[in-house]
Amino acid sequence: MLKEYDQLMKRLEKVMAFQTALTLFEWDSETLAPLESMELTSKTIGVLSNEYFTNLINDDVKKLISALSEKKKWNELEFNQKAIIKNIKKTYEEMEHIPPEEYRAYKELTAKAPGIWTKAKNKKSFEDFKACLDEIIQYQKKFAGYRANYTSKHPNTEQKDVNSVLPYDVLLNDFEEGFNIQILDEFFQKIKETVIPLLKEVTKKKDTIDKAYNHEFYDIEKQKEFCNYICSYVGFDFNRGVVAESAHPFTTNLHNRDVRITTHYYEKNLESAIFSIIHESGHGIYEMHIDDSITQTPVGGGTSMGMHEAQSRFFENVIGRSESFWVPLYPKLEAIFPNQLKDISLDQFIKGINKATPNLIRTEADELTYPLHIMIRYEIEKMIFAGEVDTNDLPKIWNQKYEEYMEIAPQHDGEGILQDIHWAGGDFGYFPSYAIGSAIAAQIYYHMSSIMPIDKYLSDGNLTPVREYLINHIHKYGATKNTNEILMDMMQEELNVDYYILYLTEKYTKLYDLA
Amino acid sequence: MLKEYDQLMKRLEKVMAFQTALTLFEWDSETLAPLESMELTSKTIGVLSNEYFTNLINDDVKKLISALSEKKKWNELEFNQKAIIKNIKKTYEEMEHIPPEEYRAYKELTAKAPGIWTKAKNKKSFEDFKACLDEIIQYQKKFAGYRANYTSKHPNTEQKDVNSVLPYDVLLNDFEEGFNIQILDEFFQKIKETVIPLLKEVTKKKDTIDKAYNHEFYDIEKQKEFCNYICSYVGFDFNRGVVAESAHPFTTNLHNRDVRITTHYYEKNLESAIFSIIHESGHGIYEMHIDDSITQTPVGGGTSMGMHEAQSRFFENVIGRSESFWVPLYPKLEAIFPNQLKDISLDQFIKGINKATPNLIRTEADELTYPLHIMIRYEIEKMIFAGEVDTNDLPKIWNQKYEEYMEIAPQHDGEGILQDIHWAGGDFGYFPSYAIGSAIAAQIYYHMSSIMPIDKYLSDGNLTPVREYLINHIHKYGATKNTNEILMDMMQEELNVDYYILYLTEKYTKLYDLA
Repeated sequence: MLKEYDQLMKRLEKVMAFQTALTLFEWDSETLAPLESMELTSKTIGVLSNEYFTNLINDDVKKLISALSEKKKWNELEFNQKAIIKNIKKTYEEMEHIPPEEYRAYKELTAKAPGIWTKAKNKKSFEDFKACLDEIIQYQKKFAGYRANYTSKHPNTEQKDVNSVLPYDVLLNDFEEGFNIQILDEFFQKIKETVIPLLKEVTKKKDTIDKAYNHEFYDIEKQKEFCNYICSYVGFDFNRGVVAESAHPFTTNLHNRDVRITTHYYEKNLESAIFSIIHESGHGIYEMHIDDSITQTPVGGGTSMGMHEAQSRFFENVIGRSESFWVPLYPKLEAIFPNQLKDISLDQFIKGINKATPNLIRTEADELTYPLHIMIRYEIEKMIFAGEVDTNDLPKIWNQKYEEYMEIAPQHDGEGILQDIHWAGGDFGYFPSYAIGSAIAAQIYYHMSSIMPIDKYLSDGNLTPVREYLINHIHKYGATKNTNEILMDMMQEELNVDYYILYLTEKYTKLYDLA
Repeated sequence: MLKEYDQLMKRLEKVMAFQTALTLFEWDSETLAPLESMELTSKTIGVLSNEYFTNLINDDVKKLISALSEKKKWNELEFNQKAIIKNIKKTYEEMEHIPPEEYRAYKELTAKAPGIWTKAKNKKSFEDFKACLDEIIQYQKKFAGYRANYTSKHPNTEQKDVNSVLPYDVLLNDFEEGFNIQILDEFFQKIKETVIPLLKEVTKKKDTIDKAYNHEFYDIEKQKEFCNYICSYVGFDFNRGVVAESAHPFTTNLHNRDVRITTHYYEKNLESAIFSIIHESGHGIYEMHIDDSITQTPVGGGTSMGMHEAQSRFFENVIGRSESFWVPLYPKLEAIFPNQLKDISLDQFIKGINKATPNLIRTEADELTYPLHIMIRYEIEKMIFAGEVDTNDLPKIWNQKYEEYMEIAPQHDGEGILQDIHWAGGDFGYFPSYAIGSAIAAQIYYHMSSIMPIDKYLSDGNLTPVREYLINHIHKYGATKNTNEILMDMMQEELNVDYYILYLTEKYTKLYDLA
């Protein structure tokens, strides 16, 4: 073993410990911490973030990275070791241009912000969140600006057109390596051209699907019972994971043996918690199967937000909303809610869970309208980082776009611009991952269908071969390969949005019996 | 402000942040973390403990402490500042003789141990915990030995008889400043002389109190409803605290605005959860009212385990099991459980919750037998640290002592030596605090009764004046004063076990109508 590698790993052990502690604080603040705690707790988070930062970004680390990057030493490293160093190098380059005191202040801000956002959302008042959001935006612009400026001056092979690096390009690349505004403009253009006309056709036939049953009264304790069952059924292991509740469902993990997901129950909405939990289980299963050799290292997590969303959406939508999936499960659901579901056949249930309706809330959206929600956020984020919009005007612009693309309008900020927690955490550039994820999920599905009888496995209640395939071709690698590398090794093709377009078109044409 | 003080505070901010993170991991591991998580999580805990240690124990801190201890500078410091430095100095002296790598290995061990203990307890098998416990004991002996050796060689004013400093004395003094084997031998001798004969008298009349009602079926959701109510009723503030569940109820806190308590519900035991939650609320109320000026500093917690237990026992036993306390509450409890309690008068209920019966489980013990449970643990710990016992023999000795003092014998290790989590956390010397706490609670009660109409306040459902008195004379000071200083300032008398003896004698003579 190279001594520089050993030294770097010793440092990284500390860095990873601070990151794990920060993850636990974040989990805790979103699931449990008392209302008045965050002001004082954010001081602790500030110290830990600063330790994270200063232990990662310093001359020692820089020297070790550059020593290990020398050809002779590089060639002595194993595959996982190279991946770790590449990853650190990327993180290092992301962070080294941000002054530590600004980073710390920003971390304290984004530790407090979700609390402020929650209160504002409950009050349905953007006014109460505006100043906080504006401060986050200013930091993000500044940070992305430092980095865009650096990248433009120091071209590297990963950035194709270095003269035009924009702050928002930098953020997009953070969430999905190699992606930028140009690629995503094309991606969303194709979606817009397909989904908007398809949605118009579907809307004409909206009365052919009745899902009134979904809004009967469903006892929450019984919902929990079914959700825990389905969570195990799809493969979430309760010995290395936990399920809790939070306002906005999410997944996090400390390592591959401590994976945590949340959901949110509604008495008058059966689907919401079920599909949330299948979705988060998809994320959780990914993290649980990262290989033991890389957990607790910088490459010991999912490779990107897009690939993560591909796993969650594959479970939630591609298989989770298919008829074969529900063949063995629907009788169980009916047994738990016999009165509410007594006149609903499996066929009606499948139509119900796939019904497409323009809707204000992203997390409750069907598969067809979902990418439109993402497109709206993408367009707004692009405007923010191009300096084309004042924070004050965000609710107005938000509402206009919903009107334009889906012909619906929020009645208040709680069901409009305040619905998502992401911006309160500073996660700009994150939303597109959801659409990328859906596209990858569709692409994986067509590939897997060509090599195994997925539908038969599902209707037999045998998810093992499906899950094993994902584990062996995606999950176990963690972030040692990026999204396109994983897809290439798996199916000899990079991300291709056409599969997604095909998937949506086929699915909704059949479901609504369109010409 | 002195520049050395500023520098010290900057260091302490880091040290406190690591401590807070460690507290959160501990809370998490006992309430939520998945079964298989601890092996990997303990690595993170190891790093954080090491950071805590090395940031506290180093030459810079040593120099700053000694500079600030010089007379001229010392006199410039304010009361709280002096308290902080005294406290650091004590912690420093406690820790500086322990090699960092041993401390870190020990912390990793005690992070894993509660998981091993839980499994062993569930299997009722001391065999499964023995090796782990033995390793913890060896570390504790070694650490206490380093410090006893140092203290003997470097006498200071706080240690009265430096030639005879024993390892167990060192541990006792950690939990209650100024206490040692000699003082506690006398303390327990008085208890033994009073309680054992009193218990014999009570046992003769055991059939005069029937509490069969307590073991009817009590729905857990309804118990939770009442427990949350009573928790608020005694003054626990849910805006700055949370209640969860764990195997063994406990209290912890991140600062004065994030205080966490747990309880444990049993379907066939009404009292257990209720008195657990009152007990933990007592701890929680103490931590919630530490003054804002000292929270997140080394003196920002309760002053000692004994004083902490005094608060919890004052709420749980001294007022919580009194008739006046239940005058306004019992009708509420009856309304929630009308069938189970329909033939039980308030008088019968009060007799029931105070019934004294030799019992194997400490946490379920009545007030009279409670100190005997503690005495047994005290005697065993004393033997361990005097090297008079082999870890293999602990269950046998445990069982013999229960036979001798209470004439009962555990049927398995789960209800014997494995019942408490403390040793799994390395907390030797902690148990005596419970008895010291009971004694302080009784002493406080006699004092407060002489200056305010406590019984009237309780039966009026007005706990505010009682709580305010505790806040203003005890809680707000945190650890700026030690136990005896607090008692002296409050009632011009140090801890005196005679009040406790008087309290138990009066209470049980009346309850059982003894001669």
